[in-house]
Amino acid sequence: MQSYPGVQALVRRTHEERVLQVLREQGALSRNQIARAIGLSRTTLSEITGSLLQRGAIVVTDTDAAHREGSGRPAERLALDPASGQFMGVDFGHRRVHVVVADASHEIVASGSDRYADHVDWPTRLDVAFRLVERLSDQYGVHYGALQGVGIGIPGPYSGKPGVRDYPSHRSAADGFHEASVDEAFGERFGAPVIVDNNTRLAALAEAIFGEKAIENLLYVRLSDGVGGGLVVGGRLVSGSAGLAGELGHVTVTADGSPCRCGKNGCLETIASVPAILAACRAAGLPVESLDDLAAAIARSHPLADRVLRDAAAAVGRVLAAVAMALNPSEIVIGGEITRLAPVIVQQASATVAYESFPSTPSPDVRATRLAAHAADVRAAHLADDDGALGALAAVFHSSPLLAGYPETPAPTGAGPRAAMPPRQTRGVADGRHQ
Amino acid sequence: MQSYPGVQALVRRTHEERVLQVLREQGALSRNQIARAIGLSRTTLSEITGSLLQRGAIVVTDTDAAHREGSGRPAERLALDPASGQFMGVDFGHRRVHVVVADASHEIVASGSDRYADHVDWPTRLDVAFRLVERLSDQYGVHYGALQGVGIGIPGPYSGKPGVRDYPSHRSAADGFHEASVDEAFGERFGAPVIVDNNTRLAALAEAIFGEKAIENLLYVRLSDGVGGGLVVGGRLVSGSAGLAGELGHVTVTADGSPCRCGKNGCLETIASVPAILAACRAAGLPVESLDDLAAAIARSHPLADRVLRDAAAAVGRVLAAVAMALNPSEIVIGGEITRLAPVIVQQASATVAYESFPSTPSPDVRATRLAAHAADVRAAHLADDDGALGALAAVFHSSPLLAGYPETPAPTGAGPRAAMPPRQTRGVADGRHQ
Repeated sequence: MQSYPGVQALVRRTHEERVLQVLREQGALSRNQIARAIGLSRTTLSEITGSLLQRGAIVVTDTDAAHREGSGRPAERLALDPASGQFMGVDFGHRRVHVVVADASHEIVASGSDRYADHVDWPTRLDVAFRLVERLSDQYGVHYGALQGVGIGIPGPYSGKPGVRDYPSHRSAADGFHEASVDEAFGERFGAPVIVDNNTRLAALAEAIFGEKAIENLLYVRLSDGVGGGLVVGGRLVSGSAGLAGELGHVTVTADGSPCRCGKNGCLETIASVPAILAACRAAGLPVESLDDLAAAIARSHPLADRVLRDAAAAVGRVLAAVAMALNPSEIVIGGEITRLAPVIVQQASATVAYESFPSTPSPDVRATRLAAHAADVRAAHLADDDGALGALAAVFHSSPLLAGYPETPAPTGAGPRAAMPPRQTRGVADGRHQ
Repeated sequence: MQSYPGVQALVRRTHEERVLQVLREQGALSRNQIARAIGLSRTTLSEITGSLLQRGAIVVTDTDAAHREGSGRPAERLALDPASGQFMGVDFGHRRVHVVVADASHEIVASGSDRYADHVDWPTRLDVAFRLVERLSDQYGVHYGALQGVGIGIPGPYSGKPGVRDYPSHRSAADGFHEASVDEAFGERFGAPVIVDNNTRLAALAEAIFGEKAIENLLYVRLSDGVGGGLVVGGRLVSGSAGLAGELGHVTVTADGSPCRCGKNGCLETIASVPAILAACRAAGLPVESLDDLAAAIARSHPLADRVLRDAAAAVGRVLAAVAMALNPSEIVIGGEITRLAPVIVQQASATVAYESFPSTPSPDVRATRLAAHAADVRAAHLADDDGALGALAAVFHSSPLLAGYPETPAPTGAGPRAAMPPRQTRGVADGRHQ
């Protein structure tokens, strides 16, 4: 085959981009893992990683001794140069902001949270967040000069397309808050691209990504002041046609149930939100005013608490099972602080989903048998309060421009390949895909 | 900027591939539409289309006079050379096989269907299908020498990843049928790549694609002998973790309902399948044995038929609304012959979905108001019995290799760019994405 130096350089450059992308998305990996992930031969890959190591774009972090099964010589793990950039995930909850900062090798280098008053206005929340960011800088010795991107979770529906800077609608006339405000405030402060999305959805993404292996199809529900959810389908976070996907809290469970704030009756939120569960306990004669009270009742194995929680969890299970019939996820995750206090919630929801997925008797129906064999696992969330911030970080890791700021080895024909590349993005986030 | 002929040729080649891809996926388009779709300037695009026209890869089919709004000079519409290839969509129903053949400009050049006995074995179905294909060849003067791909819909769950030739499981020990059989039989017969998927899912894809504009997020349910469904999320057909997505028929609607063949009680299928609806009519005192009988009762505005149909449709609406809360689709489509006979089904399901999505009173909840404003449109399927075959065709259009069989203008540096391209696929389908 004839040699075409310009083309070869372009091909090599493409390979480099793919290596860097997989490391940005997945953190430290062995050469074998990288070769498998992007479908290159070990030989070709070694050339590519050799060049990237030499130029300092990637580094050897450790060996896979701690991660591997079986025997054999431990292999080196490679990662992006940790110093090559930082990534920030921020989650604005109703009462608290969380911030996590990671380096380019996916190591969390700083994290913290700070409270603000319930339903305080957005300028105040931003102020608390920026002071927290400053404090983390002092505390952990982190400087934000190399910040490559910021992911931000906000409560409530987010109708802007994630990652796109064109915000079609206002959040709420009541507090004068504009969705673009958060984005712009962070963008101006750090000069880095910003992604904004609903924080429950980002928590779903975090649960899909920060496990032993990434989950391609996952359904997530969070029981909190309200009930929200998120879906990962085919490895991508689902937004829906108007950015409103994941509203599991307003699926009707009992048509003649209690009135919901949305105007319907018997929505899942009227049964399985924390306030609804506490109210149901009180109605049953158990005087609980807070999650702490409920935790104490659970610790005493109080049968009223158990009954109320099982009823709520069965309702959650029925809604999850219906959506799982449509989507066939491999995992269903239930999050929220109450899930950690009351393991019975996941137990009962899991039993309900299993019943709804499995035929109760061996079935003559091939389809039912298949569904039974592939029913989703139901589990409690692995992550805790920083799930939204970690999800925001994951969203950024999956959408950042690559190779920015690295010296290139001169291509044999000069700057040829460069001329063929699109102009590098230095601000604004690629395409909003969270994959 | 310095000139690098090899690289420039590669860039041009990439642009050509994108132009051909958008034409393959969307059929005839004006130059402006192509430029918008792939983000090229009109000037660059004109160079690309000029070269493709000159080489015969694309042709001018007509003008957009029939499609455009407003005044102005009609623009030419370009399409792939119709003679450059054919694409076949096949749908194996329970009692009938449908075949459609299109040329590369998306023009349907042949279509037909043939019956076989209910639940006949697969070798017989294949035999009927191949004879139909031969007959269409004679009837329409179609020769299959340029067949570029075959899409095939089969009833029941399809657990192979669409487009991937590795079939992990057998279909059913009972009839000795292996899912790979259909694929292999067509592949051997026509020497073309084959895609197989569940035919209800393919119908969902067809409804999403063959409308005035493509729908990115669509939820589809079909009421027939059973109840099945399909989902398009973010422009992609959803398979789920085990290829079982879309099983809307086995969502529980009434926990104390009639036994379902799956082993549960009160599944949607026990209420809204055609046999279930006929049985409910009979139980209510209306002696109907077939869809024809039911159609006659509907024509007489029989109140019992109306009541049974409304009850069934309300159940369909509740299931659709629950899944729509999770996915936020812009359209919900109800298919199946009974939907055409009984418009009340779509009317009632639409009313139920609207109620479940809209708060019944102006709501203080921003989220509810948003959801209300973005509730999905519920409509009857546009397509009829050939929907599965058309969906199979759509799946093929979206996954075929491009530029096959076209002469290239020699690149300035010789065969340079070619050396950089991956080997062209002549068999086996790209990546299973239906996007």
